[in-house]
Amino acid sequence: MPIVDITIIPIGTETPSVSSYVAEIQKVLQQNKDKVNYQLTPMSTLIEGELPDLFHVIQQLHEVPFSKGIMRVATNIRIDDRRDKKSTMAKKLQAVEQKMTLE
Amino acid sequence: MPIVDITIIPIGTETPSVSSYVAEIQKVLQQNKDKVNYQLTPMSTLIEGELPDLFHVIQQLHEVPFSKGIMRVATNIRIDDRRDKKSTMAKKLQAVEQKMTLE
Amino acid sequence: MPIVDITIIPIGTETPSVSSYVAEIQKVLQQNKDKVNYQLTPMSTLIEGELPDLFHVIQQLHEVPFSKGIMRVATNIRIDDRRDKKSTMAKKLQAVEQKMTLE
Amino acid sequence: MPIVDITIIPIGTETPSVSSYVAEIQKVLQQNKDKVNYQLTPMSTLIEGELPDLFHVIQQLHEVPFSKGIMRVATNIRIDDRRDKKSTMAKKLQAVEQKMTLE
Repeated sequence: MPIVDITIIPIGTETPSVSSYVAEIQKVLQQNKDKVNYQLTPMSTLIEGELPDLFHVIQQLHEVPFSKGIMRVATNIRIDDRRDKKSTMAKKLQAVEQKMTLE
Repeated sequence: MPIVDITIIPIGTETPSVSSYVAEIQKVLQQNKDKVNYQLTPMSTLIEGELPDLFHVIQQLHEVPFSKGIMRVATNIRIDDRRDKKSTMAKKLQAVEQKMTLE
Repeated sequence: MPIVDITIIPIGTETPSVSSYVAEIQKVLQQNKDKVNYQLTPMSTLIEGELPDLFHVIQQLHEVPFSKGIMRVATNIRIDDRRDKKSTMAKKLQAVEQKMTLE
Repeated sequence: MPIVDITIIPIGTETPSVSSYVAEIQKVLQQNKDKVNYQLTPMSTLIEGELPDLFHVIQQLHEVPFSKGIMRVATNIRIDDRRDKKSTMAKKLQAVEQKMTLE
């Protein structure tokens, strides 16, 4: 299953704080929790799901700052899509931890 | 009009060269030239168009390495979406050049 | 304190798996744990510390795949640097959680 | 020679325009033109040079918005570092163009 790592930066916010936008983004994710799994990190939001669902959710998230009056948004997306075996967020962490223990 | 900056990295290519994948990506863009404008830079591909068209094209481009037998793809996308005035790739460069001349 | 979010992709690996490189990167981070805090996520590594230390560590991490014989590396770095108040990885998560509870 | 692709987003700018910051960044690059080559695209700045010089310049560029009173900066960096043959911005474009003509 592909995993997406997304940051959505509102430009023109007057103050340096953007946490209210991030909180709003988490609500939109909550509304999509039947289709995608997600996880907030200190630097971005990680989302796993089927590719069409991910692109659908990304478009919704990108609209959040605009819906709150912001006029410019810089969105950054990393997609990791592996198709030779079923990959999940949990399995990716396990693979690294195993490699570290073995050596 | 939003502008997208995209890199598509095939993982597991045996050799360090990825230019054949980039060339294939340019062909897919050519097939979409009635909907989006695009430009190849030494580091990525820039695409401008309406948001639904951009997401449609991004999904097509992300599939290119898989269609050539690659099993894992890392796609990186930056979206710059400004809605207070019509922005284009050409206008963005002009704005910076003007600022540099004025000072 | 600035926070960095980094992915280091080795190109030309023959197989789609990169977890052995990620494990090696974690070891280099361990050697720097007196200077920086770090955290592995399913999509990247987050590092917090003073800016000169961060850039020093980033350069070390970027060398890891080359030291294992890889000839091309694609490194992606996001820096979040806030100077109006002391920001940490833990505080950033708290700020979002507070905003979500209040509403 | 490694190539860097960098965007520097000032957060808390009151207006959606960031071109004055980009213009200032170009001046800092001009002061470093004996060490690095650079090119402005509509979405980012591309810089090629030796790795220590690139990291030195990146740190200078990241400081630009702070020097103009901004309190938070989001910097995004892509590094493409190929060591099996001498790569330049011009050669990378040529490689893709050749592949497109051959087919």
